[in-house]
Amino acid sequence: MIKNEFSLINKIRGIIGEEKGNILLGPGDDAAVLKGSRGKNLLFTCDSLIENVHFSLNYTTPQDLGWKALAVNASDIAAMGGLPRYAIVSLILNKKINEDWVKKLYRGFNEFTKKYPVSLVGGNLSRSQSSIVIDIAMLGEVEQNRTIKRSTAKVGDLIVVTGTLGDSSSGMKILQKGGNNPFLSKKHLRPTPRFKEIRQITSKVKVNSLIDISDGLTQDLFHILEESRVSASLDISKIPLSHQLEKFAKEKAVNFALGGGEDYELLFTLSKKEAKKLPAKVNGTILTVVGEIIEGKPKIIADGKEIVPQGYDHFKR
Amino acid sequence: MIKNEFSLINKIRGIIGEEKGNILLGPGDDAAVLKGSRGKNLLFTCDSLIENVHFSLNYTTPQDLGWKALAVNASDIAAMGGLPRYAIVSLILNKKINEDWVKKLYRGFNEFTKKYPVSLVGGNLSRSQSSIVIDIAMLGEVEQNRTIKRSTAKVGDLIVVTGTLGDSSSGMKILQKGGNNPFLSKKHLRPTPRFKEIRQITSKVKVNSLIDISDGLTQDLFHILEESRVSASLDISKIPLSHQLEKFAKEKAVNFALGGGEDYELLFTLSKKEAKKLPAKVNGTILTVVGEIIEGKPKIIADGKEIVPQGYDHFKR
Repeated sequence: MIKNEFSLINKIRGIIGEEKGNILLGPGDDAAVLKGSRGKNLLFTCDSLIENVHFSLNYTTPQDLGWKALAVNASDIAAMGGLPRYAIVSLILNKKINEDWVKKLYRGFNEFTKKYPVSLVGGNLSRSQSSIVIDIAMLGEVEQNRTIKRSTAKVGDLIVVTGTLGDSSSGMKILQKGGNNPFLSKKHLRPTPRFKEIRQITSKVKVNSLIDISDGLTQDLFHILEESRVSASLDISKIPLSHQLEKFAKEKAVNFALGGGEDYELLFTLSKKEAKKLPAKVNGTILTVVGEIIEGKPKIIADGKEIVPQGYDHFKR
Repeated sequence: MIKNEFSLINKIRGIIGEEKGNILLGPGDDAAVLKGSRGKNLLFTCDSLIENVHFSLNYTTPQDLGWKALAVNASDIAAMGGLPRYAIVSLILNKKINEDWVKKLYRGFNEFTKKYPVSLVGGNLSRSQSSIVIDIAMLGEVEQNRTIKRSTAKVGDLIVVTGTLGDSSSGMKILQKGGNNPFLSKKHLRPTPRFKEIRQITSKVKVNSLIDISDGLTQDLFHILEESRVSASLDISKIPLSHQLEKFAKEKAVNFALGGGEDYELLFTLSKKEAKKLPAKVNGTILTVVGEIIEGKPKIIADGKEIVPQGYDHFKR
C-alpha cells in the first residue's frame, strides 16, 4: 500500500528517463512546458475525476461533471499562466450509465467550451465494471516570458490568492449530507478556473511563482515552498472567506480554507514593488495578500507557529 | 445501458460544439490533428488500459503494462502517419498496489521512451477502490503533407497490412489459460507500434488512408469504409498469419486475425500505381496486400460474401 502521494511522485521523478527535444519543464509542476513556435510555449496536463473519490452521482449531474472535468484541467493551465486550447477525454463508463447520461455529460463539456477558448478535439470510450472515470488531457499555450512555475518564488515576495477559499469543500460537505447551499454547492460543482484573472495580471505585473489551489491552501503553498526551497509566513486572519462560508461554518470556516481543497483559485507570489501595481479586483475576482516568502527550509509559519500542511493526499485517507 | 460504442461515438460527435482555432481534424480518427508550425501538424490522442478489461495482473507485469500503455498510444500516432513526441500519464491505483509496483511500471515506461523518440513529461496520481487505470495522453507530430486520415480511401486502392495478424489475441488466450507461448504472448504483452514502418513508407509512397488495427482487422477496415464511404473486398487467403499462430490455432487461425484485435499493426490503402513502389518488407516488417477498395456503401465482401465486422466493442460484451 502506498503511504504518501507526494513522496511517491518524487521517487517516480527519479526513474523517468532523460528528456529529449523541446521540453522546458517535465514532471513536477501543474503542467509540462514544451517549446512551441513564435515565442510561445505549449502546456500539457491531465487530471481525472473518479466516481466516489472526486464526485458522487448522488448529488452531481452529468452536466456538472462535464463542466468540472474541463474546469480542473483549465485550472492547471491557468496555474502556469496560460490559456487552455485543446482537450481530449478518456471516458470509462459502467453498466449504470445510459446514452442519455453520456449526452448530458457532453452538454456539460459544451457549456464550458462555449464560454472559454478551449475545444474538445477527441477522446476514447471504454467500459469497466467499476467506477466511472472522466480523464481529460489538455493543451494550453502561453508566451515564453509569461510562463510561471512553482519553483521561482523569491524571499521577500508577497503571497497573494484569488477569490475566497474553503467554499468548495464546505459546499461538498453540505451536498454529502443531502443539503444544498446555492452559493457554496455551486462553488464545488461548477468551479471557475482563473485563467482570465492571471492573464490580466501578467499583462501588467511580474509574477514570480504560481500554483492553483486544488489540494488546499497550505498543501499547495507547501508545493511552492518545496520547489523554490523557501519558507513562508501566513497571516491566518487575512485569508479571504466568503460570508456564506462564515455563516455556514462559523469559527471553523478558516479550516475549510486552509485544508479543504478544490477551490481552483490561484496562489501567486510577487515582489512588494510589483504588488503595488495589483488592483483590488481583477475580472471581478478579489486579490488578497495572505503572507510572505521568507528565508529557510520549506515550512509554513502561521501566527508565529509552524503548521503542518493539510489537504488532499490520495494515499493518506 | 449502452448498446453500441461506435453508434454512441457518432451521436457524441453531433453534440460537440463548434471547433475554434487551428483544428484540422476533430473527433473520429485515431488522433486529433492541430495545425503546428513550419509545415507540421500536432497529433493529440489518448488511450487507457483498464484492469480486468484490457489486462489482468495474473499474467501482466508492471513493466509490461508501462510499455504497452505507451505503445498503444504511439500506435494511434503512427495511424496518422506521425512520430510520437510527448506523453503524460494519469494513473489510478488501488490498495493492492505498493511503491515497488509503481516503480516497475515506470521502468516499463522508461524502456519504451529509451527506444523511441517520445518522452514522459508529466502526470497525475489518484487512488480509487476499484480497478487500476493507466491512461496516457500523447502528442505527436507529422508533416502536413504526410498526415493520413481514415476518410480518404479511394475506389481502386489496394488494402495493405503490416506484419502478421491475430498473434496478440491468441497470445492473450494462452495467457488467460495460464500458459505462455513466448512469441504469441509477447505480441500481446509488448506490442510494437509501427511508426518507423509508416514513416519509411510515406517518405517514398503516397498513402491515401490509414488506421491501426486495434479492434480487429474487419472492425478497423470498416472504420475506414464508413469514413471514406466506400466498400472493400477482402481476400481471406491473403491475410498474413504467423507460423506460431497457425501451429496454435490451426484452421481457426484466421478468426484471430479477422476479429481478435490488439495487433497494433497498420492497415493502409494506396493506388495500384503507388503500390508498385512498396517493398516486400520495411524495417523488417512484412507488407501484404489483403484486398481492394471498391465502390458501394460501407461493407466488407470476403470471398464473394458480405461479412459482418467483428472485433472489440466495449459495449457489446
